[in-house]
Amino acid sequence: MTSQTIDDLPTPVLILDRAILRRNLKRMSDRMRDAGVILRPHLKTAKSIEVGRMAVEDHDGRITVSTLAEARYFAGGGFKDILYAVGIVPTKLAAVAELRRQGVNLRVVTDNLPVAKAIAAAATDGDSFSVFIEIDCGGGRAGLPFPELPGLLDIARILHDAPRVDLAGVMTHAGHSYHQSTPSGIAAIAEQERQAIVGAAEALRAAGIPCPIVSGGSTPTAMHSRDFTGITEMRPGVYVFNDLDQEFIGSCGAGDLALSVLASVIGHYPHRNQILVDAGALALSKDISAQEFHPKVGYGTVANAPTPDMAVVACSQEHGFIGAEAPLPYASLPVGGRVRILPNHACITAAAYDRYYVVDSDLDGGKSVVDVYDRINGW
Amino acid sequence: MTSQTIDDLPTPVLILDRAILRRNLKRMSDRMRDAGVILRPHLKTAKSIEVGRMAVEDHDGRITVSTLAEARYFAGGGFKDILYAVGIVPTKLAAVAELRRQGVNLRVVTDNLPVAKAIAAAATDGDSFSVFIEIDCGGGRAGLPFPELPGLLDIARILHDAPRVDLAGVMTHAGHSYHQSTPSGIAAIAEQERQAIVGAAEALRAAGIPCPIVSGGSTPTAMHSRDFTGITEMRPGVYVFNDLDQEFIGSCGAGDLALSVLASVIGHYPHRNQILVDAGALALSKDISAQEFHPKVGYGTVANAPTPDMAVVACSQEHGFIGAEAPLPYASLPVGGRVRILPNHACITAAAYDRYYVVDSDLDGGKSVVDVYDRINGW
Repeated sequence: MTSQTIDDLPTPVLILDRAILRRNLKRMSDRMRDAGVILRPHLKTAKSIEVGRMAVEDHDGRITVSTLAEARYFAGGGFKDILYAVGIVPTKLAAVAELRRQGVNLRVVTDNLPVAKAIAAAATDGDSFSVFIEIDCGGGRAGLPFPELPGLLDIARILHDAPRVDLAGVMTHAGHSYHQSTPSGIAAIAEQERQAIVGAAEALRAAGIPCPIVSGGSTPTAMHSRDFTGITEMRPGVYVFNDLDQEFIGSCGAGDLALSVLASVIGHYPHRNQILVDAGALALSKDISAQEFHPKVGYGTVANAPTPDMAVVACSQEHGFIGAEAPLPYASLPVGGRVRILPNHACITAAAYDRYYVVDSDLDGGKSVVDVYDRINGW
Repeated sequence: MTSQTIDDLPTPVLILDRAILRRNLKRMSDRMRDAGVILRPHLKTAKSIEVGRMAVEDHDGRITVSTLAEARYFAGGGFKDILYAVGIVPTKLAAVAELRRQGVNLRVVTDNLPVAKAIAAAATDGDSFSVFIEIDCGGGRAGLPFPELPGLLDIARILHDAPRVDLAGVMTHAGHSYHQSTPSGIAAIAEQERQAIVGAAEALRAAGIPCPIVSGGSTPTAMHSRDFTGITEMRPGVYVFNDLDQEFIGSCGAGDLALSVLASVIGHYPHRNQILVDAGALALSKDISAQEFHPKVGYGTVANAPTPDMAVVACSQEHGFIGAEAPLPYASLPVGGRVRILPNHACITAAAYDRYYVVDSDLDGGKSVVDVYDRINGW
């Protein structure tokens, strides 16, 4: 597609290793298929039609998004079954209805009775909606908390009884799995997730309300769950790229990080043993999630570092401060030299960029730019 | 321009109060003019031609930028004297030269001898360059550390002697002023800044090398410096909008925050006294700088909050968790209701958005959208 190499790219720039991406996608796809669960990848991480198409191979094409901008973008890319997995508000129903009229089954989420009533009311105007009820399996974000499930049946009945409203099922996100760092710790959260979401589905069915889809998902629980009984689909997201946080909690290995930020060295400061690079708070994000398990990662680590613990230890808007315990290799990193920085949290770092420069480490060590994928940012 | 009100805008969205913006701009412009210092506003915060034009009123139009994308954008908007204030690398000189050939005096910065030589070499090809030498006045980011100024004269002679290279002067940024929270503490940093940058200029002049521009700048030091003697220009940036961090360190008052994120309530969680909104890590950023002085601000506070200490206490990618010590006013904030969140750090929060929806609190309390300004993100 191009004869560019990464040496030709202006910095800072986002690099995606297609070889690692493909391995990450296949690992999750195979695992879900073997478990008899349909993969509904959460494309909030990739925000890319190309990555989305690869992610749903061998599954039925259903996806998850986190913004209406993503919903419109992926609808434009031909995706037909899209779950918008952030609690819907009445003012956004018109935008949802517009996409649905175009033949896209854009599904929404709520855990709120007045919103359920607003959806039912909007459907009386001739529009149709498909709705998931959100369950909190212990993470303490959105959803009706399990096992109390306060108001579940009231919300479900409103939706079930409304003409042109499809109560698609129940969904949850085990965000608390991100704070475990052993397979057994994550598996315990996965079992919480399963019990909550299957329990909610059973509560609906016991009341005579159908619940066709039982939707779980997070990368850690998808990777380490030991039992998917009753779950029909999973919605992991960050597994497509992985990152330092996923590595440390054990969702992936050190060789499974597909995303990096290519930066240029812009200054040498041997009197304090630091190098500055042109990737700072905007290029890397200020997400420090991976510091929960490894404080020395700072705002990202240097890939293939020539000295241990070489990381972005601080950042201002466009300056990243690289430090290490041993003296930095100034001679091999002259001003203008380049480093690749592995992100703490791929979803957040990637959001600063409107495209991926795609390389393939299986072809030539990742030197050539083999493709460019766009991204949909904003709302 | 439009009959939209902020109630019509999809959330999350970035709101700019023009009345506050104008007061912020006038306060700094007047202060610099009264001090006999030219204002070279750092437009890394605003990234907006409209805001840039207002910011240079009563000054000579010079500006500062933090990326080449900003340089191209502001050049396209008619700005002719632009300082790209992040250490230049040789591979970026071609892009700089291209803008300079179009009649824009895009100036660059270095503190590195090999880079100075590369600039001199690039200038032999017929291109011209204008260069500032960066000085570290104590903040420990980029620059030759004062008072040692190692290599200053070597770098300066290379640039001074090179044909078609203009050694424009010296510049510094007192980033450590952000960690003071009293006027006298900031004034002390401002005096460090002044002594370093004027000292570097004098060292050049003592060696027979002209140093026409002596450039300092940060919002706190520009606001609280007691002596600008020897400084010719200042480069504050965040003062255009201000933010919680600037409020807490005393660069501005609580009524001077021009920027906010408008978000919708997406869920009620009274069992843990939280409300979720549709502005999370991407819409607010994960910048927690203002927590240095007020930990309870979280990822941003709710403007005109009906109960004290109402703030975004946690966030995931698209979910903001609003908490407070007292019970939240659920009835007055139904799902679909709206809140405005004041950012910790305006520069970082704004970078998630491609435009400002402009309101004017002096006209109608900030209800109508009176304009839309675009922004230049990326690199």
